[in-house]
Amino acid sequence: MTPATTTTVPASTSSAELDAIAGRAADAAPRWAAQPPQDRARALVAAADALEENRAELVAIAIGETGLAEARLSGELTRTAVQLRLFADTIVDGAYLDVRIDEADPHFALGVRPDIRRYRIPVGPVLNFAASNFPFAFSVAGGDTAAALAAGNPVIVKAHSGHPKLSERTGAVVAAALEAAGAPAGTLQLIYGQEAGVELLTDARVAAGSFTGSIRAGRILADIAAARPAPIPFYGELGSVNPAFVTRAALAERADALADGYVASVSGSAGQLCTKPGFLFLPAGHGLDDTLAARAGAVAEHRLLNPGIAAGYRDRRTSILAAPGVTPIAEGSLRFDDAGQGWATPTIVRVRADDLAAQRDALLGEAFGPLSVVVEYDDEDELAARADDLFEGNLTGTVHAGAGEASAPLRSLIGWITGHAGRVLFDGWPTGVAVTPAMQHGGPWPATTNDSSTSVGTAAIDRFLRPVAYQDVPQALLPEPLQDANPWGVPQLRSAAGQSQAWGAAAR
Amino acid sequence: MTPATTTTVPASTSSAELDAIAGRAADAAPRWAAQPPQDRARALVAAADALEENRAELVAIAIGETGLAEARLSGELTRTAVQLRLFADTIVDGAYLDVRIDEADPHFALGVRPDIRRYRIPVGPVLNFAASNFPFAFSVAGGDTAAALAAGNPVIVKAHSGHPKLSERTGAVVAAALEAAGAPAGTLQLIYGQEAGVELLTDARVAAGSFTGSIRAGRILADIAAARPAPIPFYGELGSVNPAFVTRAALAERADALADGYVASVSGSAGQLCTKPGFLFLPAGHGLDDTLAARAGAVAEHRLLNPGIAAGYRDRRTSILAAPGVTPIAEGSLRFDDAGQGWATPTIVRVRADDLAAQRDALLGEAFGPLSVVVEYDDEDELAARADDLFEGNLTGTVHAGAGEASAPLRSLIGWITGHAGRVLFDGWPTGVAVTPAMQHGGPWPATTNDSSTSVGTAAIDRFLRPVAYQDVPQALLPEPLQDANPWGVPQLRSAAGQSQAWGAAAR
Repeated sequence: MTPATTTTVPASTSSAELDAIAGRAADAAPRWAAQPPQDRARALVAAADALEENRAELVAIAIGETGLAEARLSGELTRTAVQLRLFADTIVDGAYLDVRIDEADPHFALGVRPDIRRYRIPVGPVLNFAASNFPFAFSVAGGDTAAALAAGNPVIVKAHSGHPKLSERTGAVVAAALEAAGAPAGTLQLIYGQEAGVELLTDARVAAGSFTGSIRAGRILADIAAARPAPIPFYGELGSVNPAFVTRAALAERADALADGYVASVSGSAGQLCTKPGFLFLPAGHGLDDTLAARAGAVAEHRLLNPGIAAGYRDRRTSILAAPGVTPIAEGSLRFDDAGQGWATPTIVRVRADDLAAQRDALLGEAFGPLSVVVEYDDEDELAARADDLFEGNLTGTVHAGAGEASAPLRSLIGWITGHAGRVLFDGWPTGVAVTPAMQHGGPWPATTNDSSTSVGTAAIDRFLRPVAYQDVPQALLPEPLQDANPWGVPQLRSAAGQSQAWGAAAR
Repeated sequence: MTPATTTTVPASTSSAELDAIAGRAADAAPRWAAQPPQDRARALVAAADALEENRAELVAIAIGETGLAEARLSGELTRTAVQLRLFADTIVDGAYLDVRIDEADPHFALGVRPDIRRYRIPVGPVLNFAASNFPFAFSVAGGDTAAALAAGNPVIVKAHSGHPKLSERTGAVVAAALEAAGAPAGTLQLIYGQEAGVELLTDARVAAGSFTGSIRAGRILADIAAARPAPIPFYGELGSVNPAFVTRAALAERADALADGYVASVSGSAGQLCTKPGFLFLPAGHGLDDTLAARAGAVAEHRLLNPGIAAGYRDRRTSILAAPGVTPIAEGSLRFDDAGQGWATPTIVRVRADDLAAQRDALLGEAFGPLSVVVEYDDEDELAARADDLFEGNLTGTVHAGAGEASAPLRSLIGWITGHAGRVLFDGWPTGVAVTPAMQHGGPWPATTNDSSTSVGTAAIDRFLRPVAYQDVPQALLPEPLQDANPWGVPQLRSAAGQSQAWGAAAR
């Protein structure tokens, strides 16, 4: 394993370089957007293939820079390639363009209706701030990049400082594959440095931002995007504590399996996942302390991503362990090596629900690392109200119930999760997000800056498109997807003349 | 006609009242959201019917408060009822829920995939700031309200100070109709006063904002929404100057018709429309001065909406007439009556394109009222670059070309409009926005705060929904639209097991 400190760290991108990069992205934008979706899809598949062809080199660099395990990183590279192919599939038939054609209608309910045709066009260059904890899947060629490229936008990635060498190599591999497959130069570019990222976010040529990281950094960037002379959308995936709730019936059915699954979800990738369950509600008298302690004690020491994250984890862990009412179940460990890297084993603590409510400032924030809090409750009737009192928005909320259980408190709890999270899980654990058409990875603030969107799943493409309508434009001057001849063969949803006369009839 | 000053103006809503109103909206939210879309659709149709049943009274109040003509206001009431019925149709079959079901998949590309089901739920109470210039269609029961109600959200309307009595009556009529059709109390409520609107926009129970009005006010409100402890989406439709471009071929074919259409579009509703063409590019030597002057001179004097708008129009008109290089084609008139209301006839001026570029601060802002600027250009080659230099985002851009014309400059111009507006028009005028499935009423800043959305057309509902996914949730605990039994009979898009093995194949 190569210590991170020996890699060559690219210098922070200068203002002059940022100007040139934004210029190249702006030049590439109309040419990339003009490619038929089939051509862009081919380029995404080529990028996926190139990632897999360079697997050995890229994973080796990633191990050294992040401390994550080879199996995890190799799996993440596969996921990243699969994401690119999924977005190729998402665009290849053109359904994502959402083509709507209203035929001219002399009998329209509000007078003569012109011919109106609408579809979605790419927003323009997207600035994507990469994450620390997914050096492939939420980084240079990750989900945000794949979605923005698929939509037809050039992407500029602000590389994460935790894996600069990997970012550089991934960028070179993927940009070369895209260009070899016909993408214009400047379709994928990288920048380095926090200040460079902030500076580019205010550049008029940047049309949207995306981000995965902390609430603090995400809020700063979201505020910058909103305060621009011309504000732009900013899609940040920030902090989440992902509460999980276990009913008495579930505990009676499968206590050991619950302990196994919980500790695995808390400790996987050293707890450095957006969907780590930060709080597990167990009925008082659950009797799981010893089992949890044994499971946590069996987890091998794992390096944290970088010294900054390790220092943050140390502080959060110290204050949680010191909070009144908190009792360690598995105290775990944290040590720093000579290179300044932190190494940890899982810390599991317990607290009574009343004490958690009394210590909310000390306990409720996200602890990014392998730590989770068991919250002991008395009565299932109280769970929904407790959750409502304690938590803001989350990416996920999880329920473990007994077979066939469908009590009123359980329904209330599901209702609360639905109102405060993007994903409701049953009898599973929120880590390991499936990349699929129906996935929703987003939730009310502070889980994201914008809970109408997702950063995982095919709907993620919606963030990087905007609609334009054409009224009475001659066929020869219409974009291909809107022409009656439909040369790209995309789905066209037509509203025929005369339909408006019946509006409302179906609801009477 | 009743002068506006004699109507009873409701007092500004107090903080205590705002708290009670927000509380009622929050109470109504889950009950309104839980109604099957067929039931909500019926309530929307009932609201539409109630508006039309009270047409005589409502239009009479509106005439007095706005100075708009009876035909225009009666037509607008019809449009408002049609919008409500259109949204009833939009939701009645449940397609808007965008249900996606990924079946559990043991052979998924990234390991075993759970059962994931996603649909869109209402965001929660929406605060809608009503517009001055559409006292029905963008006001209490207007498009934003219809879209938010259809999505399943309670709506609180901040009534516009220009038509308070109409707002109150419309609110009473529509709220009663909704409640009689089964909507919970608090589904539609009104507040009064700018300060009350600002205060409520920061209330944690408000989940989204919508607005139609000036750039200045819209920016203030958008900034407030973005700066909340938990930011919320804010959909503002602000300012637009809607440039229109006439080629030499179009002028040669139909000069008189162009003059007729232009003056009608500029002067309709005294130019107080978001889509009024503020700039008309004509080739130098167009010879239309006399025709335009005659057409404008034939337009009857029209009252402006209220004294504040009249004062703003006076200032803009004065500075435009005084700008170097500006020559009146039709100087028009503006006078104030004893009640402080302004009355105007159209003002058309001309300026050479070079002079417009030199006087951009004086000339480029929106002039809300019956004033438009003819811009004389030399060469069609220059149009796209001129436009790019002069204009920010717009709701619309219009081209008048000759029959079959498809020159490179024309294509460049269409390309520029596509990149800077939400709607591209050919051989027509942008006023008179059709309410149809394919309409796009929105565009890059400052036309709107968010150009991925529209405030006219069925896609407007997207603003008030957010997705939630359910993972491995038992059938009995799933929301109706996600159940296999599908009791609401909504469209369900299924991804079958095994599909992921072929991802990317279609693009190779």
